[in-house]
Amino acid sequence: MSIVWESRYALRMRGVTSSTIREILKLTQRPEVISFAGGLPAAEYFPTERFQDACQRVLSNSAHQALQYSPTEGYPPLREFIAERLNRSYNIQVDIDNVMITSGSQQALSLLAGLMINPGDHILVEHPTYLGALQAFSTFQASYVSVPCDDNGICAEQVPAALRHAPKFMYILPNFQNPGGTTLHADRRQELVNIAEAHGVPIVEDDPYGMLRYDGEDIPSLLAFDAERLGGRAHQYDGNVIYLSTFSKSLAPGLRIAWVVGPPQVLARLVQVKQGADLHTSTFNQMVIYEVAKDGFIDEHVATLREVYRKRRDAMLGALDRFMPHEVRWTQPQGGLFLWMHFPAQINARELFEASVRRNVAFVPGDAFFTEPDPPPTARINFSCMDEAGIVEGIKRMAEAIEELLVAAQTQTVVP
Amino acid sequence: MSIVWESRYALRMRGVTSSTIREILKLTQRPEVISFAGGLPAAEYFPTERFQDACQRVLSNSAHQALQYSPTEGYPPLREFIAERLNRSYNIQVDIDNVMITSGSQQALSLLAGLMINPGDHILVEHPTYLGALQAFSTFQASYVSVPCDDNGICAEQVPAALRHAPKFMYILPNFQNPGGTTLHADRRQELVNIAEAHGVPIVEDDPYGMLRYDGEDIPSLLAFDAERLGGRAHQYDGNVIYLSTFSKSLAPGLRIAWVVGPPQVLARLVQVKQGADLHTSTFNQMVIYEVAKDGFIDEHVATLREVYRKRRDAMLGALDRFMPHEVRWTQPQGGLFLWMHFPAQINARELFEASVRRNVAFVPGDAFFTEPDPPPTARINFSCMDEAGIVEGIKRMAEAIEELLVAAQTQTVVP
Repeated sequence: MSIVWESRYALRMRGVTSSTIREILKLTQRPEVISFAGGLPAAEYFPTERFQDACQRVLSNSAHQALQYSPTEGYPPLREFIAERLNRSYNIQVDIDNVMITSGSQQALSLLAGLMINPGDHILVEHPTYLGALQAFSTFQASYVSVPCDDNGICAEQVPAALRHAPKFMYILPNFQNPGGTTLHADRRQELVNIAEAHGVPIVEDDPYGMLRYDGEDIPSLLAFDAERLGGRAHQYDGNVIYLSTFSKSLAPGLRIAWVVGPPQVLARLVQVKQGADLHTSTFNQMVIYEVAKDGFIDEHVATLREVYRKRRDAMLGALDRFMPHEVRWTQPQGGLFLWMHFPAQINARELFEASVRRNVAFVPGDAFFTEPDPPPTARINFSCMDEAGIVEGIKRMAEAIEELLVAAQTQTVVP
Repeated sequence: MSIVWESRYALRMRGVTSSTIREILKLTQRPEVISFAGGLPAAEYFPTERFQDACQRVLSNSAHQALQYSPTEGYPPLREFIAERLNRSYNIQVDIDNVMITSGSQQALSLLAGLMINPGDHILVEHPTYLGALQAFSTFQASYVSVPCDDNGICAEQVPAALRHAPKFMYILPNFQNPGGTTLHADRRQELVNIAEAHGVPIVEDDPYGMLRYDGEDIPSLLAFDAERLGGRAHQYDGNVIYLSTFSKSLAPGLRIAWVVGPPQVLARLVQVKQGADLHTSTFNQMVIYEVAKDGFIDEHVATLREVYRKRRDAMLGALDRFMPHEVRWTQPQGGLFLWMHFPAQINARELFEASVRRNVAFVPGDAFFTEPDPPPTARINFSCMDEAGIVEGIKRMAEAIEELLVAAQTQTVVP
């Protein structure tokens, strides 16, 4: 008798499906497609020479260390570097024991899910929220309680009511949210930190895009608000926020180097989960990323990226204004990689996706980012990995596809 | 009210503790300690120049690809390369859809655990078995049914009785087992493959050391026996074995590049688990490993390693013969990185560890490798990462520590 593989799979696999985005990306990799679907950084701006120099330096000076096994917590100089930058940015006090390296932020989400989620546990999420987080949490059979977002991010005043579901933690993307493109107002950050303390519910703050701001002033992270509550620089951080960020957007995603900041007692447990998950993150990549980032290079490079992405965002906002039917609305992101579109109710986002792909333009239909069935018709569109001319052309074609569907919907209404 | 973190952790964390080995490694990193505790490859034989050339080639020719996000399944040329080598070694037919890249073999174990283990499910393991596998499985709340090993590996004739526990899969290390150092006899491989088919229970075959054979003839993998059962080269492999291996022992562990071979239907599900776990393994590292390994280099390099490690193993076996009290026994590994010691019953392995560390020599007490309490006194000792003189000196000191404990035990017996 051959093996019945389905009978071998764990119950948790019933909630695990392929990422819609990754499946869509496969469909749209034909070179003639203008794709707003991914969240890829602009490859033509990767600091390749700096990576070449860093690889040579690491392998010339420290090959025995770089190619060998290493501690689960991560490469100490990189952890120090991350702690120092946070302390400088926010005037707080985190140290090396507050920092752990992960194999991309996706791993951090997965490890936190493994650490905290029992089957059926609720997680408080934004509405809509990052698909990859839902995928990581659903592997551990999470349930969700979602709180809506407006142009100032998650509606903090609705959070206390949602806490009746006893969520294990709140998952918050404060800056240039994926997919919404919105930024959480400072007052709401303070409010969330107060709620976490008052109700004893941790916050997982996911901040991959914080450095990529194109207008306005930086707002301190939830971590910084929470450290402030504890008395700022006085102590090693031991509060209520677990903060995630990554080098994927500021340097390059292909090395999979990200980090978690949190209370040392939590990281000590998270390290145990990571030991079982992959022993440790590539020693070589951690050392190379450190060599690339250090001595101020990361700030110089991010300044370049901000210029490039600001222009692309502006090209997209300009094209939307010019081409989109008046019934369509979209967010005005101050940074990050995405904006979010709201379509009139008679548009079906999956049909629009198909009509757009027929015109060789792609995006991600918004329903993938919701935890509830039948959300309103929306889309996430990315502006980071296409030049301005491509962006304008893509938006023009997408507008044509919308017009087509609006006309069809009207015809259907008039002639039943 | 501050957060009570313990109340936030999932039930599965009760079974998750730090790896004894990693804790011991921390204790023994003082330079004066002769450590047989780790399982580290010899860093002085890492092919550093080849890695330097590979990094330059990848970044000169393909930086935009290497530094970017990439598919979860892995870098296609590397998957092809792995499939072709397996087909050549074993005269079987696996193709690119049978191969998936993972971030080290530890990740493969963790993903398989996520795919298959419900809380309380039994896994059939060897007795003793690899600690890291127990750690990966225990994160998903596995139970164990263990089958003893002798000098020819797991006692296959005892496996059918153990199947009464309905294990989700059998976890088998056929070559130069970690920790036992033993090799599974060909007849038993055939028998296990027959049992898997007869009872519909998959085999997870973990083969990190198969290339590192120092005496005797290579024995086909369980995967090869199972492919043979299916008719050898006739079809794309779709059998009962999931095979794991890694570049960590043949090239370098610091890049964390390993692979899984299995039926395409299983890998399709495993890819979904990996998407949630880390999106994909470092694109850059996969491309670098491919550049390093290709054109026959990996075979040349492994031939060098076999020479080096054979001498170290022989130095260890010679020193054991010369210095150890006659009551102590050990395995005669034909390859790999470890041998396994059995002590007389009056020795406590943890006390021996302490007596050895006082003499600046370290090893791993064997109890960490058993799934049951109070196993007989044993130890795993590594011979790959120390020169011959260090090996001889370390064994001499360890023998002195054993003599000391034997004398103390005798005294205690005589004078109660």
